[in-house]
Amino acid sequence: MTLRMLSQKVAQAVDEELMSAQGGFSIDQLMELAGLSVAQAIQKSFDVSSHPRVFICVGPGNNGGDGLVAARHLSHFGYKPSIYYPKQPNKDIYKRLLTQCENLGTTMVGMDQFEQHLNGQTDVVVDAVFGFSFHGDVRDPFRNVISAFQQTQKPIVSVDIPSGWDVTTGPTEQVSFQPQVLVSLTAPKQCASHFKGNRHFLGGRFVPPALAEKYQFDIPNYLGADQAVEI
Amino acid sequence: MTLRMLSQKVAQAVDEELMSAQGGFSIDQLMELAGLSVAQAIQKSFDVSSHPRVFICVGPGNNGGDGLVAARHLSHFGYKPSIYYPKQPNKDIYKRLLTQCENLGTTMVGMDQFEQHLNGQTDVVVDAVFGFSFHGDVRDPFRNVISAFQQTQKPIVSVDIPSGWDVTTGPTEQVSFQPQVLVSLTAPKQCASHFKGNRHFLGGRFVPPALAEKYQFDIPNYLGADQAVEI
Repeated sequence: MTLRMLSQKVAQAVDEELMSAQGGFSIDQLMELAGLSVAQAIQKSFDVSSHPRVFICVGPGNNGGDGLVAARHLSHFGYKPSIYYPKQPNKDIYKRLLTQCENLGTTMVGMDQFEQHLNGQTDVVVDAVFGFSFHGDVRDPFRNVISAFQQTQKPIVSVDIPSGWDVTTGPTEQVSFQPQVLVSLTAPKQCASHFKGNRHFLGGRFVPPALAEKYQFDIPNYLGADQAVEI
Repeated sequence: MTLRMLSQKVAQAVDEELMSAQGGFSIDQLMELAGLSVAQAIQKSFDVSSHPRVFICVGPGNNGGDGLVAARHLSHFGYKPSIYYPKQPNKDIYKRLLTQCENLGTTMVGMDQFEQHLNGQTDVVVDAVFGFSFHGDVRDPFRNVISAFQQTQKPIVSVDIPSGWDVTTGPTEQVSFQPQVLVSLTAPKQCASHFKGNRHFLGGRFVPPALAEKYQFDIPNYLGADQAVEI
């Protein structure tokens, strides 16, 4: 299935409209459904009995928030999530999402254990570092994270876009790793045309058809009550 | 499966703890997941092709909010929800949830069409009027709603508890209708022992096991990424 891919500008406009007075959504709602769809895409891709240890690498913004929500749902699904969250902004929603994970006994991984944990005690890596609004150079402590993504043999699941890719043109000179699974949220971004991994999902089952029509993108047919659909 | 049933007092304490600083949840998150589980229980119980027209009767509190969230998800699942919402409180979250439904083209039913709509143009009725914190007498405009529930031949799905039942002792002299489906949220309330309908689901897959242990109730095994489980 080929869906229309969004530019950074259009993706931003769609997000803003969803959260405007006209759209009515709160960030809590959108993040909850986005993170749930990520967790469900992982559950469809990696069996909990063979791949229980999911390592979620969390960035400082909303992409990281989606990752924290996914970590919570994965724990309820029976996985053993662990979290690397090196830069924790002083923002209420992220703090609450982290508290929710801590209440489930999720392992927090320190900076000095990061690489060892990723390559040793992990079955699946979740890249929830940067989303579609990222631009510029990757700085520490995330340079190290992306560099580990470049080198690891572990399967990577990227949330919305592979972190560090250019949202329009895809892989760059510095960042060219290919996730095995990509979970696009709301609609694929333009860089998704460079995705060469195994499975591409769409999540974020909250877009009103009228909004998709306004911005000329498609909503594929999800199955039953699913929150993620393979595209 | 017999799960421990909660008293009104314990149910209240569990809710408060989830939304405390220790629990970390916002009302938006909990309502989103509760409403999604209601929608999924309906999707498991009534096929969209034979029962597309779901009529959601919405009360003035959080039970009504769960109903509004369910209406949105049902619309995304392909159902044709309609909403009766005779008493709309001036509270941001309810207004936003209603906006979200309106953006999906959901039919709003007026007071004068209520009974005709329920008995004529409806395949499934959702009772999202009162939840576990209800006590006292049912007053207008909801007396009329409950009275229609008593008389209709349409299948009713009750959210959390059948509206107007006593949360401890169940059916009363005034209110004794039996829903065909009951979706208990977080854990069944004591009145659920009087439920004689076909299918009983549990929803609200967000309870940390440590919290369930503290208040001595059970979390049954959900299937895969499901948000509702039959109990």
